[in-house]
Amino acid sequence: MPETSSPAPVRVALLGCGVVGSQVALGIVTNPIDLAARVGAPVELVGIAVRSVDQELDARIPRALLTTDPVELAGRADIVVEVMGGIEPARTAILRALRSGAAVVTANKALLAQHGPELFEAADAAGVDLSYEAAVAGAIPIIRPIRESLAGDHVRRILGIVNGTTNFVLDKMASEGLELEQAVKEAQALGFAEADPTADVEGYDAAAKAAILASLAFHTRVSLKDVAREGISGVTAADVEWAKKTGYVIKLLAVAEVLGKVDDGEISVRVHPALVPDTHPLASVRGAFNAVFVEADAAGDLMFYGQGAGGRPTSSAVLGDVVSAARRRLTGGKGLRESKDQRFPVLPPEAAITRYQVRLAVADRPGVLAQVAGVLADHGVSIDTVRQASSHTEDESGAATLIITTHAAREASLATTVDAVAALESVRKIISVLRVEGA
Amino acid sequence: MPETSSPAPVRVALLGCGVVGSQVALGIVTNPIDLAARVGAPVELVGIAVRSVDQELDARIPRALLTTDPVELAGRADIVVEVMGGIEPARTAILRALRSGAAVVTANKALLAQHGPELFEAADAAGVDLSYEAAVAGAIPIIRPIRESLAGDHVRRILGIVNGTTNFVLDKMASEGLELEQAVKEAQALGFAEADPTADVEGYDAAAKAAILASLAFHTRVSLKDVAREGISGVTAADVEWAKKTGYVIKLLAVAEVLGKVDDGEISVRVHPALVPDTHPLASVRGAFNAVFVEADAAGDLMFYGQGAGGRPTSSAVLGDVVSAARRRLTGGKGLRESKDQRFPVLPPEAAITRYQVRLAVADRPGVLAQVAGVLADHGVSIDTVRQASSHTEDESGAATLIITTHAAREASLATTVDAVAALESVRKIISVLRVEGA
Repeated sequence: MPETSSPAPVRVALLGCGVVGSQVALGIVTNPIDLAARVGAPVELVGIAVRSVDQELDARIPRALLTTDPVELAGRADIVVEVMGGIEPARTAILRALRSGAAVVTANKALLAQHGPELFEAADAAGVDLSYEAAVAGAIPIIRPIRESLAGDHVRRILGIVNGTTNFVLDKMASEGLELEQAVKEAQALGFAEADPTADVEGYDAAAKAAILASLAFHTRVSLKDVAREGISGVTAADVEWAKKTGYVIKLLAVAEVLGKVDDGEISVRVHPALVPDTHPLASVRGAFNAVFVEADAAGDLMFYGQGAGGRPTSSAVLGDVVSAARRRLTGGKGLRESKDQRFPVLPPEAAITRYQVRLAVADRPGVLAQVAGVLADHGVSIDTVRQASSHTEDESGAATLIITTHAAREASLATTVDAVAALESVRKIISVLRVEGA
Repeated sequence: MPETSSPAPVRVALLGCGVVGSQVALGIVTNPIDLAARVGAPVELVGIAVRSVDQELDARIPRALLTTDPVELAGRADIVVEVMGGIEPARTAILRALRSGAAVVTANKALLAQHGPELFEAADAAGVDLSYEAAVAGAIPIIRPIRESLAGDHVRRILGIVNGTTNFVLDKMASEGLELEQAVKEAQALGFAEADPTADVEGYDAAAKAAILASLAFHTRVSLKDVAREGISGVTAADVEWAKKTGYVIKLLAVAEVLGKVDDGEISVRVHPALVPDTHPLASVRGAFNAVFVEADAAGDLMFYGQGAGGRPTSSAVLGDVVSAARRRLTGGKGLRESKDQRFPVLPPEAAITRYQVRLAVADRPGVLAQVAGVLADHGVSIDTVRQASSHTEDESGAATLIITTHAAREASLATTVDAVAALESVRKIISVLRVEGA
C-alpha cells in the first residue's frame, strides 16, 4: 500500500481538432511528463469532438477518443477546451461544461465578443474559470498580463496589431509597392489569407479582439456591436507611399482608449487603418506578426509581440490556460474573474478624438493652401503640418497634392470640415482621410 | 444587522519606502476603491518599514504607519511587500513573513538570485505565494507570462535587455558616437546611472535577472554564481561604429538557452555585450527601455517591451502581484509554485556556443586573409563573412582592418583559435572579439 496516493488525473475534453485542436491534442498526448510536472497531476485527454470520425488525424492522436457530440463530451470532463470556432454548437457546449462545474478554455473570439456576458455569468455562477488567452493575438500572452499583471494599474490606451493577415498585406504593399488586391493574392498563395478574406480585410476579426481587449482593460462589458469598424479595403498603394514619405506606416489597428479621467471617463473602441509614426514600436511589426501596445498609468508604455495565429503558436496559449485551470482544480481557488465594476460608457464612433492626415488634389496655383487652412480654422480644426507637392501630381494633370496633418480633433467635426474643404472651388478631390495613432 | 458581512480587509505591510516603495504606498492609499474592486475586499496598509521615521514622505502617506523594525512588521500582515533591497534585513523579514503564513511580494533581484532556493522552500513549506514580477524588467509583465502562459510550452532561449542604464549608454554611444565614459556621464546627469555605475556597467544587475529568468524558464535552480558575466566596460566607440557598418547594434544581453534537446538538454546562462542584427526586434529597443525576447518551441518568437526601472513603473508590477496575492487570500488556492523538476545541468561559460565577430589589425599586404582563414580552418572554426577594410585603419598606419564573423563555435575553441591568430606574424593586434546573438 502506498503511503501517499497519487492524485487523480485531470480530465480534459477537446472540442475541435483542426489546425489548433490537433496541436493541443499533440501537446497533451506527446508531453505527458512535462504537463504532469507543471500541474502536479496527470493530464488525461478523455475525448475529442470532431465533425466526422473519419477525419484525417495525426497518428499519435488516439482515434478512439473521437466523438461527434461536443455537447455530451463537454459534460464529462474537468476542463473543456473549445477550439471548434463558430457560435453554435460551441456556445451550448461551453454552457454545458460551465454548468457541470468544468473549467473552460476557449480560443473563440467571435463567441466571446458576441456572447461574452452570458458565458462569464455562467462561469461566475458555477465558480469556475473561463480562460481565453488564445482568443486574442494567438501565442502572445496578453490576456493574463492585462488581467493580472496590470490589476493594480489603470490602462489608458491599447493599440493592437491583432490581425496577421492585414498586417502581412499592408507590409507587402509597403515593401513592394503593390496594390491591395495583388497583396491579398500573395497572402492567399502563402496561406496567410483565406479564400474569402472578408473577415480579416474588413476588420471583423480585429473588431472581435478589440471588444475583448477593451472589456478586460476597462473592466467594462464591451461587445462587438460597440466597436466602430473600418477595414483596409480602401487603402491604396498611393496611401502607403505617401505614408512612407511623411514618416508613417499604415497599420490596421484595434484601438481601445479612455477619454477623460482614467478612473471615471468614457471609452472609445474602434478598428481602422491608421498612420503610425515610423519610430513607434508598432511600426516595426512586420509580416504576419501581431503586437499589442499598452499605455498604462503607472507602468507607462508596454508592448507584447509575437505570432498571432497558426496551430502550434495558438496551442501554446491554450495549453498555458489548461495548466493554470488544472492547477486550480488541484489547489483550489480561482483566477481573477471577469471584472465589470467600472461600467465606463462606450462612446459612439463619431465622438472619437484622433489626429488625421488628409490628402487632397488641389489646383496648382498660389493661394489654395491659404483657402484650405482658412476652412480648417473656421471649423476649429488645428493644423499640425502641411506638405505641398506640386511636382507629385497623382490624379490629374495641373493638380498639386496637399497633405495636411491635424492636431487632435473629434471625428464628427473632422467629417464636417472635410466636406467644407471639398466644396472649395480650388479643391479637385479629397483623395484620402486617414487617422494618425501613436504619435 | 447586515445580511452579508463585508469581507475583512487584506492587511499589507510595506518594507521600504524609497523610489518604488513610496509609489506602492500611494497606489494603495490613493486607489482604495479600485483595488478593493479588483480584490473583492478592502486592501489596508498596516505599516511601512523605513530606516528613519524622520524620512521625507509624500503628504498622502500616513506618517503613523512608519516603523523602523521590518522584521516585526513582517510578522503582522497578510501580504508583505519587500522593496527595501539588499540582502539583510530583507531576507530575515521575508522568511519571518513566509513562516507566519503571509504571502510575499518582492522586487529584490539580488536577494532572489542569491537566496532564492531558501526563500522558495520557505514559501512552499508554508503553502503561500512568493511573487516577484517587479524583480526583472520593472513594469514589463515577464515573470507571469513565462511561469503561467508558457507553462504548456518549452522555452528554448531568452535574450533580454534587462538593464536600462547600459542600454541607455550603448544607445548614446551609437547615436552620438561617444566613448563609454562620456555616455556614462550623460546617463548619470540624466539620472539613468548611479554615482557608482559598477553594478550596471559590469553586468552584475543583469546577471541576477538572468539567473531568475533562467530558473523560471527552465524549471531549474540557477543562481548568480552559475551566470557567466561580462560587462560593457570594454566596449569602445569604434566597436559600436563597426557594428553599425556590418549591420548590427551592440546590446548588453542576458542570455539563457537550452543546448541539445529542449526537454533533456544543458543550459547556458550568461550576460555579455553582443552584436544583434539591426533587423532583430531587440535592436530597436532604445534608451533606457527593457525588452525580453523569448523563443519557445510552440509559441515561436515573443517579445515583451517596456520600462525596466523607475518608481511608478515598478510599482505597477508590485501592485499587480499584490492584487493576485490578495485574491488568493480570499478565494484560496496558490499560483504555480517555483517549479524545479527539470534540473538541467548548467554549462560552464567556456562551453557556450555562439557566433563571433573578431576584428583585427593586420599588415596591409596580399595573402594575410588566406593565412588568417587557414588558422581558423585548422581550429575547426567556420567563417560566415569576412570584410577587409584597408582604407579604414584605426590603430596603426600601414595596417588594414579585418572583420571576421564566424558560424557558431564553442567559446573554448574560439579562445584557442584567437590566440593562434594573434600569434601570426602578419597580425598586429586583435582589436575586439564580440559575440553575435539573435542571428
